[in-house]
Amino acid sequence: MLLNGRPTRTIWPDPDGDAVVAIDQRALPHRVVTARIASAAAAAEAIANMTVRGAPLIGVTAAYGLALQARANSSDAALESAAHTLKAARPTAVNLAWAVDRALAHVQALPKPERAAAAWAFAGQLADDDVAVNKGIARHGLALLHELAARKPAQTLNVMTHCNAGWLATVDWGTALAPIYRAHAQGLQVHVWVDETRPRNQGASLTAFELGEQGVLHSVIADNAGGHLLQRGAVDAVIVGCDRVTARGDVANKIGTYLKALAAFDNDVPFYVAMPLSTLDRSLVDGLAEIPIEERSAREVTHIAGLTRDGATLEVQLVPDGTRAANPAFDITPARLVSALVTERGVVPATAAGIASLFED
Amino acid sequence: MLLNGRPTRTIWPDPDGDAVVAIDQRALPHRVVTARIASAAAAAEAIANMTVRGAPLIGVTAAYGLALQARANSSDAALESAAHTLKAARPTAVNLAWAVDRALAHVQALPKPERAAAAWAFAGQLADDDVAVNKGIARHGLALLHELAARKPAQTLNVMTHCNAGWLATVDWGTALAPIYRAHAQGLQVHVWVDETRPRNQGASLTAFELGEQGVLHSVIADNAGGHLLQRGAVDAVIVGCDRVTARGDVANKIGTYLKALAAFDNDVPFYVAMPLSTLDRSLVDGLAEIPIEERSAREVTHIAGLTRDGATLEVQLVPDGTRAANPAFDITPARLVSALVTERGVVPATAAGIASLFED
Repeated sequence: MLLNGRPTRTIWPDPDGDAVVAIDQRALPHRVVTARIASAAAAAEAIANMTVRGAPLIGVTAAYGLALQARANSSDAALESAAHTLKAARPTAVNLAWAVDRALAHVQALPKPERAAAAWAFAGQLADDDVAVNKGIARHGLALLHELAARKPAQTLNVMTHCNAGWLATVDWGTALAPIYRAHAQGLQVHVWVDETRPRNQGASLTAFELGEQGVLHSVIADNAGGHLLQRGAVDAVIVGCDRVTARGDVANKIGTYLKALAAFDNDVPFYVAMPLSTLDRSLVDGLAEIPIEERSAREVTHIAGLTRDGATLEVQLVPDGTRAANPAFDITPARLVSALVTERGVVPATAAGIASLFED
Repeated sequence: MLLNGRPTRTIWPDPDGDAVVAIDQRALPHRVVTARIASAAAAAEAIANMTVRGAPLIGVTAAYGLALQARANSSDAALESAAHTLKAARPTAVNLAWAVDRALAHVQALPKPERAAAAWAFAGQLADDDVAVNKGIARHGLALLHELAARKPAQTLNVMTHCNAGWLATVDWGTALAPIYRAHAQGLQVHVWVDETRPRNQGASLTAFELGEQGVLHSVIADNAGGHLLQRGAVDAVIVGCDRVTARGDVANKIGTYLKALAAFDNDVPFYVAMPLSTLDRSLVDGLAEIPIEERSAREVTHIAGLTRDGATLEVQLVPDGTRAANPAFDITPARLVSALVTERGVVPATAAGIASLFED
């Protein structure tokens, strides 16, 4: 997508070939900074500290991490150890394990001298595949947006989203935002309600930033406001990304997603989940019982960083000294609240049958 | 309640008799500062800019505002003009109009020379009445907490609340928090999940502050986290305050309340609304259609104030430059999601019949 008017991916190989470069998402929206990742350990750290985030992007970053390990030492032991570290960087998104396991199997099937180049090529292919997948989601999601727009001709279509499931969560295009970008490019009038997404504010920082860079009309709202807007008919559809989806369609996504799904359901507004097939975990059924939920630092709740009047980025404390906080990072939206899953292979119901149909023929 | 260990109300007459003094809630939790309010216009301003907030407290503040007007000029025209200004300071909470209309009727029935003293006494009585009402809510709410505690003997009772409906929202004791304070004083083990309550963070600042001052165990959470905690059985009850309740039990309260009510309902957790009778507006039925919802400044969403490392309070910007934001301050929780209303006269169902029963005999 566009960054300062130039098409830019979120991650790319360093031209000198011994590192990968990524947009450091912790500095956004106030500064555009890149991070150079030169080892598997650095890749794991970049995933854990959220230099890169978003289920698809952390998968690709981890594959590059394994490739960097293969350059340094391509023994089975070294690769397996790196794979273990990378997979442990964050527990909820399944794309991470999916990408690492695939990359590892691919290189371990080869003789050692070929492993480094093969791992590097594999990561690059994974990045390209991600872009292709997201274009597929864009195409299928666009049809849904056109259906909704047809019900209110010549009026702005209002879409609500939570967290960031856009360009910055992927290599390019995004998942939930991809259909919106496509609609915008076609001249459909779209306005996006952007949940700020406390505690890390990926909506207020990342989603607002990338929608602004592409020229898509949007308004940031407190996470609390979504129910009210849904009650008032100010939302035509909700569309979010996901970090893991079970075989029956339960969705793990950023904390707060479940609340918006409840409100969409209560007001008969469609609630769509953009799901690359890499985010599907067919080994699980009951999302609430089976998907591990990451608990992050209390400091993400008690403190927040922002821009001062002087243009500096500064962290301030929001609570009284010594206040305890809890910080679960994801919640589970039961399949019954999901209107449809938007995948690169088409739109299906969030049911076991709907998901199974993606794998027929 | 206790402030630095000393029993303190949120508002009190200045000893020299020509002003009223209130805790300036905008400086909390980082500094304890009082504001001196010496005219009706200053009272209206203190209500509008949220120096004082909370439906019961703004009612009392407005009554003091009218008393200050009566001292300056107690003509009908001057009093009616001040009443108009005070009632316009904030639109959603009905206590404001309720208190001003009662105070105005009371003083206008008297000859001019008696008005100032009578208005001052009336405001003082309203403050005392608020405390008595809240003690009633405490007593009736305590019975509900004991019922819940009886189901899990020797375990901590987990209560979730949203915004601040505590001591700081009233003259003393609070509404939603009053039963919790009473339970804590009786030795019941209570832990409170405190929604931070973006955008103004009354939970993270005010509720966390006052629970801390009283020694009640609590954890601040992002507003997004409540659904997850309810899903996981980590919440035994939700209890919130309200700004206006209709004759059939629809509840206007701080933005985001509706989302928590949906999640409590979805997980069979009781959702209680602490309602002083002054917050009931029997002239309205359909909350969604009839209660005006205040839209506040976008800056409350795009910026936030906190404490720097140096101990200063500083506002930082959370969004990219020029980002639009919307900021509805309240939402409507339909009566069907409310388990019961906890009033000074007892606990009743959130139904027309339940509410009518409060006025029998």
